[in-house]
Amino acid sequence: MAEIGIGIVGGGYMGKAHSVAMAAVGAVFDTALRPRLEMIAASSPESAERHRAALGFARAAKDWRELTDDPRVEAVIIASPQDTHRAIAERAIALGKPVFCEKPLADSLDDARAMVAAAEAAGVPNMIGFNYIRTPASQFARKLLAEGAIGRVTWFRGEHTEDFLADPAAPFNWRCEGMANGNMGDLAPHPINAALALMGPIAEVLAEVECVHADRPGGRVTNDDHAQIMCRFASGVKGHIYSSRVATGRKMGYAYEIHGTRGAIRFDQEDQNALWLYRAEGPEAERGFRKILMGPAHPDYQPFCLGPGHGTGYQDQIIIEARDFLRAIEGGGAVWPTFRDGLAVAEVIEAALASAQSGQWTSVIQV
Amino acid sequence: MAEIGIGIVGGGYMGKAHSVAMAAVGAVFDTALRPRLEMIAASSPESAERHRAALGFARAAKDWRELTDDPRVEAVIIASPQDTHRAIAERAIALGKPVFCEKPLADSLDDARAMVAAAEAAGVPNMIGFNYIRTPASQFARKLLAEGAIGRVTWFRGEHTEDFLADPAAPFNWRCEGMANGNMGDLAPHPINAALALMGPIAEVLAEVECVHADRPGGRVTNDDHAQIMCRFASGVKGHIYSSRVATGRKMGYAYEIHGTRGAIRFDQEDQNALWLYRAEGPEAERGFRKILMGPAHPDYQPFCLGPGHGTGYQDQIIIEARDFLRAIEGGGAVWPTFRDGLAVAEVIEAALASAQSGQWTSVIQV
Amino acid sequence: MAEIGIGIVGGGYMGKAHSVAMAAVGAVFDTALRPRLEMIAASSPESAERHRAALGFARAAKDWRELTDDPRVEAVIIASPQDTHRAIAERAIALGKPVFCEKPLADSLDDARAMVAAAEAAGVPNMIGFNYIRTPASQFARKLLAEGAIGRVTWFRGEHTEDFLADPAAPFNWRCEGMANGNMGDLAPHPINAALALMGPIAEVLAEVECVHADRPGGRVTNDDHAQIMCRFASGVKGHIYSSRVATGRKMGYAYEIHGTRGAIRFDQEDQNALWLYRAEGPEAERGFRKILMGPAHPDYQPFCLGPGHGTGYQDQIIIEARDFLRAIEGGGAVWPTFRDGLAVAEVIEAALASAQSGQWTSVIQV
Amino acid sequence: MAEIGIGIVGGGYMGKAHSVAMAAVGAVFDTALRPRLEMIAASSPESAERHRAALGFARAAKDWRELTDDPRVEAVIIASPQDTHRAIAERAIALGKPVFCEKPLADSLDDARAMVAAAEAAGVPNMIGFNYIRTPASQFARKLLAEGAIGRVTWFRGEHTEDFLADPAAPFNWRCEGMANGNMGDLAPHPINAALALMGPIAEVLAEVECVHADRPGGRVTNDDHAQIMCRFASGVKGHIYSSRVATGRKMGYAYEIHGTRGAIRFDQEDQNALWLYRAEGPEAERGFRKILMGPAHPDYQPFCLGPGHGTGYQDQIIIEARDFLRAIEGGGAVWPTFRDGLAVAEVIEAALASAQSGQWTSVIQV
Repeated sequence: MAEIGIGIVGGGYMGKAHSVAMAAVGAVFDTALRPRLEMIAASSPESAERHRAALGFARAAKDWRELTDDPRVEAVIIASPQDTHRAIAERAIALGKPVFCEKPLADSLDDARAMVAAAEAAGVPNMIGFNYIRTPASQFARKLLAEGAIGRVTWFRGEHTEDFLADPAAPFNWRCEGMANGNMGDLAPHPINAALALMGPIAEVLAEVECVHADRPGGRVTNDDHAQIMCRFASGVKGHIYSSRVATGRKMGYAYEIHGTRGAIRFDQEDQNALWLYRAEGPEAERGFRKILMGPAHPDYQPFCLGPGHGTGYQDQIIIEARDFLRAIEGGGAVWPTFRDGLAVAEVIEAALASAQSGQWTSVIQV
Repeated sequence: MAEIGIGIVGGGYMGKAHSVAMAAVGAVFDTALRPRLEMIAASSPESAERHRAALGFARAAKDWRELTDDPRVEAVIIASPQDTHRAIAERAIALGKPVFCEKPLADSLDDARAMVAAAEAAGVPNMIGFNYIRTPASQFARKLLAEGAIGRVTWFRGEHTEDFLADPAAPFNWRCEGMANGNMGDLAPHPINAALALMGPIAEVLAEVECVHADRPGGRVTNDDHAQIMCRFASGVKGHIYSSRVATGRKMGYAYEIHGTRGAIRFDQEDQNALWLYRAEGPEAERGFRKILMGPAHPDYQPFCLGPGHGTGYQDQIIIEARDFLRAIEGGGAVWPTFRDGLAVAEVIEAALASAQSGQWTSVIQV
Repeated sequence: MAEIGIGIVGGGYMGKAHSVAMAAVGAVFDTALRPRLEMIAASSPESAERHRAALGFARAAKDWRELTDDPRVEAVIIASPQDTHRAIAERAIALGKPVFCEKPLADSLDDARAMVAAAEAAGVPNMIGFNYIRTPASQFARKLLAEGAIGRVTWFRGEHTEDFLADPAAPFNWRCEGMANGNMGDLAPHPINAALALMGPIAEVLAEVECVHADRPGGRVTNDDHAQIMCRFASGVKGHIYSSRVATGRKMGYAYEIHGTRGAIRFDQEDQNALWLYRAEGPEAERGFRKILMGPAHPDYQPFCLGPGHGTGYQDQIIIEARDFLRAIEGGGAVWPTFRDGLAVAEVIEAALASAQSGQWTSVIQV
Repeated sequence: MAEIGIGIVGGGYMGKAHSVAMAAVGAVFDTALRPRLEMIAASSPESAERHRAALGFARAAKDWRELTDDPRVEAVIIASPQDTHRAIAERAIALGKPVFCEKPLADSLDDARAMVAAAEAAGVPNMIGFNYIRTPASQFARKLLAEGAIGRVTWFRGEHTEDFLADPAAPFNWRCEGMANGNMGDLAPHPINAALALMGPIAEVLAEVECVHADRPGGRVTNDDHAQIMCRFASGVKGHIYSSRVATGRKMGYAYEIHGTRGAIRFDQEDQNALWLYRAEGPEAERGFRKILMGPAHPDYQPFCLGPGHGTGYQDQIIIEARDFLRAIEGGGAVWPTFRDGLAVAEVIEAALASAQSGQWTSVIQV
């Protein structure tokens, strides 16, 4: 068992989540590499010091560069605003340090491409934080699809719906400006990632992107509230993706349904410990969607829970990411999802935005 | 209390359903007009005679013309194949007889327009059989929307999904040819009708229409299996409609969800006695989608059931249609939905098919 | 095809439901015997005449005796208050006329026993109206149990919960006095009937019976609001039955769950078109309760609905009763459930009431 | 911020869960006291050393006494077999060290009483590990009940159902002998704890306790498989509790429903992030059970999750226990649930077992 010094840039919600994950992952998964909470950086030295004390790090950095460059920081987690991702990642990569970057990968497609190029050229372990696809249920869905459990897939519908800006009287805030903070920057990446992870590449899209509540108390909203994307997968399958921050009543509507020639799958993150599976087999009278409760028989469940139905939660997904990041570091090798997966999402978003402008089917350009 | 002689053209499933409805409606709703099952017509005199005996009609007609022209037949129900709808309806209208026509209204947009023109010129009560919108739950949804219960609507998603042709090994049958028998002719009208009834007119559409399983044992399929339609309502609201006959696991997926600024509504015909309502009011901690069980407080429920939760079924929807048809006849007046509502659905389908060809946003032409 | 003259005693809710059923059953099931709505009796000649006109009967009787004795009344349906059941049934039986009696069978155990004795001695077709067990879902549950689909049964839990008297401020009404109108007289028979129908005879019970809201505006309540019964089936299986009219939020909580060595069944009448089945077979990771939507593959579904998921409702259950009553009359033979089934329920209730007094396990005496 | 040395006795599932919790709790809740994983004891020195390495403790103890007596161990967590609980707890208490003990409190009622007496006499912070009642949903249910949100309570039904021994062919194992390992020792404490926590003390019980599958491959089962308990709360409310390890299909059926005069509550741990609430207020037509997704507005949710619907899991419950244990240590004061709460559960079980023998209502003796 060896130790590894972890540095985290960002002390906000995701910074804290990764700190907790790194503190817990060793005991949960009995990892070979054991994380040491070495250093944290934030928006100011004072803020970093506060987070250091609260989250249990050994040291606070005066800025991110002190962190990336510190010899006792052996791996870097980026949980800072997305316009900082590229610079931090490139520095860490240049120093040969493994990097985990929160989603979305970068502020622009160019930045995302540069980050992928840098990481792949250097051969440094790199990972992106799409954590919703990490639940036992979604991992099991992937496995079922890979095994052909529902036959040939004929339709995909995905969504990510929340309602935190559904009230038009909610005042203007930082989420109301900047493409990165809008629905297409913040929420759409989740169901697009799910679509890619479950269905493979998307070839063409035709989208609509709309700001529903443009005028809010305190300012004019300059990014989008919701969007729909008709998509054609490279496999030929058709699908639809919807994302919204004005979906009244929906709190964590990361959901999908997939039809195949011999079955179907349904999932909704609002009940994240269940996967619904229909199998077109056996007597007609006994067919129905089964509500399968996650348990030790499913991927990544057992380390958290003794028996079926105990239930995993949001934080557990982050701990699984921590384990996989450690594994990648150890092996110097394969991990999922990588920066390239983050780039793939960005490429779909780019095409969707273009198609929403033109009203035309638009190809997704993959570099 | 007066009697009225009913003639039904068609002894298939819908012909039977309307026969049962006409036999039951008087006692259920204590109607002023009491139907008398006067005459039935079918594909042959022999078939008509069989149906007459089974369904309890007084007489069998040798063909539909004998039925429409019989003086004791005072109102006509058309439940025959859709390529016969126009001729039968025009004859009944010419004779001044009220007409109820099963959906879809006609085989072509031209026929549908001609039927509307004839019925409106003659001032004859006319009605179309969109029965799913008749459930207490969907009527209640309409009422809630009309009252503004969920505020200003911001999104509509509707579907009608079944799986009767999901198995690619299912042999070619009559449903596999003729646009009228495909998904766009047979299933799509339901959610489009729901969209129009709940949301008002659709201004523009962009659709994809696909035959997923083109080769079946016994023949090549010439109509579509499923379709998606992005739509822009005349009100400016955006939406999406999906219909499919290959949606494995779905048996009666007539479903919709509607987001508003102050609430949301969800419905699924597979649990037709419940409507889900979210109201963005009261303490945050107590908000959630309510599963409202239909009961005497909801539209058209009480005549069937003493108390809440007893449950109405498919046949009950047809009995409500029977009541409204009788009311229209009595009053000579307003009824819903009329031939014009059937035409409106056909106009959306026409635009959707055109947009699927062009890959462009296409206006819905209303005549 | 022959006609049969039907007489119905009682023009209240169940009288109406049976009238509608008799008007519709011929067309629905293409029955050999075709009912003729011959005569109706009610609490007064004036009331009978009103019901006659509303429900479509040929004649109104001045009292029930005129109805039972009329030669054109060939079968009698009793839907009057339960203290009248015995006299009417005995008269009809004496005249050799088939009798259908609404539940509960009688006002007292003695009366119930007398009615069974009379019907069985005369060999007259007799039937009791436990209609909830008639849904396709509950019939399918019976079939699955009979086939051993869930292995050896190890536990039964049943309930019938409504909330019509949950509000202590609801004024005293006729339901608040008379054992027959209380929970044990009115609601408990339903889950007890379900228990007997699904599980077989009950050997012993230990119950608690309580009036929760004894003082209401306008009077003092003299019957019970809810009751629980621990029961030991003759098969050795243990179970529990709960019934309540103060179960806030429950509208039609006729529900049961049954565990077996190889599976489990769950049902709730509030979603009456679904049965939940768990089978302990196949890979552990794919096991779960399946929500089976009723369809043509299930008992008594097809005549009402073309395809799966269309949905049957409360009235449809009554139509199935009408069909079975006609079949019994035709065949002069076996039918289910009979008066004896009604008696069996009364015997369980008698034992439950005694055990609630004594606080002791009490045997169910079957005569 | 001060450190505290934690010693854990037991390296099994719960020992690991508490180790993870102690590693994570500081960062999650920004606690004033920060746990240091000081020492672990297990069934042998070798086992302790293995667990030390895997779970990240500083030292392994050769036996539990070395651990309790070590000066750097300042608080003790007991997660060893229940026949060891008393001796370890008494030793720790004698040394004035705070003790957290896994449920059930002890192997016998005498031991449980002795432990409570010792802890209370010494004034040492003491806590018992009923973690299911810790979910945000169950905490919220407690809060709603305390506020009278559903009016006066009239009925409680609780259960804890799993199916790990439902298959009669499952071989005899350690769970099949010893009262402590049977349903009454292992599962029944959960819903009894829920009943007490939500409803207050239980005055009288009448239970049935049964071993359904007495003969298993490899041995004869000597403890119970399932049990039902009719209970009368001290408040006068009636209720029912069922627990089972042979409830086929149920994986984590920790569930309850509570009726009140103005509302109702339902919960099922299989969907642990939702609480169902019915309020008998507002228009009749809009009433229904609301599915409330846990979020920042609910107890103990926010530290884990940014927004509503993210979801907490089993491990999070243990982290909340860790926080409360630390708080009790700091304050030297009030904490919940204490050893006394564990004793209260044991007293109900004692009465239930006696009543199952006698077939009589039996008072719960509280010392």
